[in-house]
Parts: sequence; structure tokens; C-alpha cells
Amino acid sequence: MFLRMRAEDPADRPPRHAEAGPVHLGPGPEFDLIRRFLAGSAADGARADVRVGPGDDCAVVAGNGIALSTDMSVEGVHFRRDWLAPREIGWRAAAAALSDLAAVAARPIGILVSLAAPAADTGDFAVQVMEGCREAAEHAGGILLGGDLTRSPGPMVIDVTVVGEAPRPVLRSGARHGDEVWVTGELGGSAACIEALLAGKAPAAEARERFARPIPRVREAQWLLGRGLLNAAVDLSDGLAGDACHIAAASGVAVLLVPELLPVHPAARRRARGQMLRLALGGGEDYELCFTAPVGAVEPHAAAFRRTFGIRLSCVGRLGGGDGVWFVDAEGRRTSPGISGWQHFGGDT
Amino acid sequence: MFLRMRAEDPADRPPRHAEAGPVHLGPGPEFDLIRRFLAGSAADGARADVRVGPGDDCAVVAGNGIALSTDMSVEGVHFRRDWLAPREIGWRAAAAALSDLAAVAARPIGILVSLAAPAADTGDFAVQVMEGCREAAEHAGGILLGGDLTRSPGPMVIDVTVVGEAPRPVLRSGARHGDEVWVTGELGGSAACIEALLAGKAPAAEARERFARPIPRVREAQWLLGRGLLNAAVDLSDGLAGDACHIAAASGVAVLLVPELLPVHPAARRRARGQMLRLALGGGEDYELCFTAPVGAVEPHAAAFRRTFGIRLSCVGRLGGGDGVWFVDAEGRRTSPGISGWQHFGGDT
Repeated sequence: MFLRMRAEDPADRPPRHAEAGPVHLGPGPEFDLIRRFLAGSAADGARADVRVGPGDDCAVVAGNGIALSTDMSVEGVHFRRDWLAPREIGWRAAAAALSDLAAVAARPIGILVSLAAPAADTGDFAVQVMEGCREAAEHAGGILLGGDLTRSPGPMVIDVTVVGEAPRPVLRSGARHGDEVWVTGELGGSAACIEALLAGKAPAAEARERFARPIPRVREAQWLLGRGLLNAAVDLSDGLAGDACHIAAASGVAVLLVPELLPVHPAARRRARGQMLRLALGGGEDYELCFTAPVGAVEPHAAAFRRTFGIRLSCVGRLGGGDGVWFVDAEGRRTSPGISGWQHFGGDT
Repeated sequence: MFLRMRAEDPADRPPRHAEAGPVHLGPGPEFDLIRRFLAGSAADGARADVRVGPGDDCAVVAGNGIALSTDMSVEGVHFRRDWLAPREIGWRAAAAALSDLAAVAARPIGILVSLAAPAADTGDFAVQVMEGCREAAEHAGGILLGGDLTRSPGPMVIDVTVVGEAPRPVLRSGARHGDEVWVTGELGGSAACIEALLAGKAPAAEARERFARPIPRVREAQWLLGRGLLNAAVDLSDGLAGDACHIAAASGVAVLLVPELLPVHPAARRRARGQMLRLALGGGEDYELCFTAPVGAVEPHAAAFRRTFGIRLSCVGRLGGGDGVWFVDAEGRRTSPGISGWQHFGGDT
């Protein structure tokens, strides 16, 4: 959804620790552009039918809370045909959008899929892409509600809009000073796969699975919401270092991460520390959740969570005063993580 | 929205008067593809949170009726930069999507806009496109709820998802044998503009206005709904000859048009009869409404409608037994309109 312009050029990554803008996005030129988009918009909250306007993972409309978000994928930028089967292309595109529903703890109703494709691909290829989208939607508990299909000279473009019910949406702005910071699952698996593919190597099977069929954490989010464990949440599409900035900016806090606590995916764990942290914090596309909760609230539920979903919950730090995202050591000293954010394979490095 | 794959190649236009498929779309290879997309989908109506699934102008979800639709525009296929200012490109893209809300008589809440753009256009150009989208949304009574912005090697792609409230959605399937067929406004203005532009001529100002800033008939639809005048409705994006097929297919009726009754836009009226009818029936992108109502129900309201909205209502025919869309003469003889449907400027002819 907005508020994340997906920058493929690393030079456009937001610098960390700069000042947050008035719409509570993280800093950086890409978000400046989005602030320009929103300048002059009808004000958030000015309408009874808009509970949450632009500025979070989803908008939430109507009395009972309908969560909406949209996510666009471009061939050659977000996916490559030589790396993924058509069904996987569709799954990933839909999973990325469904992950925004997880971030507000919405229950998926369905998706709308728009597809621009060259004429040669509007047969079996398009059908398989669409089937992949639908499989991801149905896996998350939603259905294919509709869409649009149009010819294009290319590249193929897939835009997925997700719709869910969120009577109690979890926002980026609900974090409180002192909260623990938690993440679901493991980080860096998808980035490790991309790194291998770019190097012309075969990725580890479990890393490729994370890349090709990421699981949006929609059921996990509802489970956590039902136990009162989500003060604030964001999904990890651009990497923890970048995405946690949005919680910091929206909630007026600093996110203090303990690097030793990060649940690094096995495929990323084999690297030197710097590279491992880069994959885990800046790799993006893991589609895990980062959330904050009161001290001590999550731990009693961690074992049940793991039994239920087969993935772990990890406390990776705390929220403190200030802003931005920092590494913190045992003495409480803050250092910059020095992670340049999401390194997409379409980027220069 | 689905169920209209926008075909730019005239060879892909559906043949008229063929048999309707099981999901009640008009006939033709483009709709065959959409039927393949939907094959195996979770059944429409099987969920309490989905009132209308894929197959109409909008899906309608949740208890109170949230209408959703999506519409994608591709540079060089649906718009050209040398013909339109950036703000007009945005307005048209949003108006096309908002028109689907009009077709179900939904009240707009807002739009989500995804934009894939070359790096050189992600500054002022993108901001102006987005402003045009937002202006169209606000003109229709909605707001910009969010979106996504991503880099692309090009062409520019804009996908607009619309969200509205439709406690009583008007469907394509509600038409009854014997109903009158009505249209709002005038037909063929946008097509006349495109024709002039393709010929290298300056379009008539009023035709260009219809092309560059079409008005989705959302307020008109709600006015008509409030007076009980909408048995079935569809918006005219591909031209009356093609779009009326969907009402015929969904309602199990034949649409019988009287060509002399068609409200042809002045810019199209100057042509020979055959060309005039081609522009009015097959031109597309007028974004007027076609609806059906019981005999005699609309006429008493026509003058008030014209006073309120500044456009006319025209009765253009009736619904009869059979299927497809036909011209009918005073003796009730049916002939094929022989209109090949929407001729987009991206097509071969």
C-alpha cells in the first residue's frame, strides 16, 4: 500500500534516523513523493465512512471496518520469469498484498487482480498467474473477487487489491514507549534466495520456498490480536530496518534492536555477520510481521503460537525514546544498523 | 472490473449473438479467458461476507454492501501522452473505475491508485497523474484512500480500485422481459474525439471534453436508484453494442435497440449513418449508464433528471425474448447491429 513506494534504486532508499514527516511515514525521497501525492487530500478522519485514511498498511472504511490495500508487481523489477513459474509469480504478487491485511490484523475477504500482459501471455500464462493469485487468496481465507485484464506491450504488471474485515485494525501508531518488539518466523530467507539466483547458484530449497511462496501472516495476526498482543504492527516487505521505521515514525518512538536476538533464516545464517544482518534486516520480501506488545505479554503465548503455526515468535528488542531504528547493546548504547534497506534484484547492487 | 477484458485488437472482439457462458458474461474469446480465470473459484454466494462475486461491474462484500471494482490503464494502449495532460490521464483512469460504481449504483467512498512509472516520471508527472485521479474521486464524492507507486521500465500503468457503499446493488441480472432500455447523456463523443486525433485533426471541443474528462454517472445512478428506476444497469465503457450484451447474457433476455432513438453526441452526429452508429454503439469510453426499467416508470422523472444533472435520459429500446443485442424496426423485425464493438486507438484499425 502507499506509503511504501517501492524503490528499486538503492540510491532512493530513505536515510535512517532523519526526521519523520507530517504524515508519519519514514524519511526519504520516496516518501517525500508520497507526501506530495497526499498534499491537499481530503483529511483523514473527516468522513464517517473512512476510519483510517492513507498512511498505514491498509485504509479502513465503512462502519464495521473494511481494510483495503493494493500492491503492484512489475516484471523485471519485482519478478523474473526465469526464476519463477507463472503460478509462483501470481502467488507472490497476491501474498505481498495479503501481507498488508496481516499488518492490520484483518480477516481476508478476497482480492481483485489487475493484469497487464503482452498478447502472447494472455492465454495459459495469464491463467496460471491468476491461479497463483487465487491460491494465495484462498490459502489466506479469501477468494478471487474480480479484476481486470488488459493487453500491454510489456512488461507484465500485476496489481493486487486486498479486502478484509478489520473491526479492530492494528495500526503503526499504536506502539508505546517500553513495548517489546517481536517478529514472526525467520528473516532473510527470501533475500538469501535472490542473492544465490543473482550469483547464478542454485538457492537452498528452504530459501527458495520463502522467496517463491511466502506465507502472509494473516492467521497469525488474528491469533495475536485475539490475545491482545498487538499494540502496533507492520509487515516486513522491505526489511525490518526499513519497515520498523514506519512504526517509529507513526508512534513517535525509537526502535531498539538487539542484533543477537534476530531470528535469521538458516540460508542467511551461514554468512559472515555483516552480510547475515544485511540479509535479515535489509533483504525484504520475507512478509513476516513485526509487532510491539507490552513487556511480558507475549512470552506466555509463544509456545502455543509455535505449536499452532509451526513458526516461532522472537523478541528482538524494545521501544525507547527518540526516533528511528537502532542497534542497542547490553549497556543500552545505540549504534546505527548501517543497513541500506531493501536491495531488490532490479537495483544496481 | 473483470468480466471485461479490455481487448485492443478488434479481432478479439466478441462475436455478437453467440451463446452466453455459464458465468453470464457476453460471448467471445476474451470472456472465455475470464471464464478460465474463474473456473474452480470458490462459489459466488457460498460465503456470508460476499454478496456479489465476480461477474458484475463490481463485487459486493460485507454485511452492509461494500462495492469494489478495479480498472487498469496502460500508456500507449488506453492513453497517450501526446493527447492528454498528466492530470487528464489520471482523471480518465479514475473515472473509468468510478463508472463501475455507478453501474451498481454505489456511493463512492474512495479509490486506491497503483502507478508503475519510469524513473523519469516519478516526480511532477506522477504527482499530476495522481492529482487527476484524486480530482475525479473527489468530484464523485470519494477520496484518495491509498495506493502503490513502483518503478517500471515503462509503459506507465495505472490501476485504480474503487470502493463504495451499495446496500442495494443494481446488477446486470435484474432486467425483465418487457423492460424499457434507457441511457444517460449522449453516446459517441469520446470515440469522435479519438477518431479526429487519429486522423491528425483537432477534435471538437465538446468531444475532447468527453474524452479527456468523462463524468462517471455515480450521482445520477443513485438518483435513479432512489426512485426505483434501475432493474439492471451497466456502464458504457466498451460501447452500447458490447456492454448491453452483458445485461442480455446475465438476465436471459434480448436487448432490442431502435437506432433512431440513440442519443448521438453532436460530434458524432455529423457523420454518415453507418459511421455515426459505429461511434455511438461501438465507440466506447463514454461512461454513460445503460439501464432497464419497467415500462412507463422513467418518463415521469426524465425532466427532473435533466434539470438536476444537465443531461438527458433517452429510451433507446426494449427487452424481448431470446438473447444478444439487436436493432429492431417498427414492425419488430430484428437485424444485427453489425457493430464490431470498441475500436480502441491501440487497435489495428
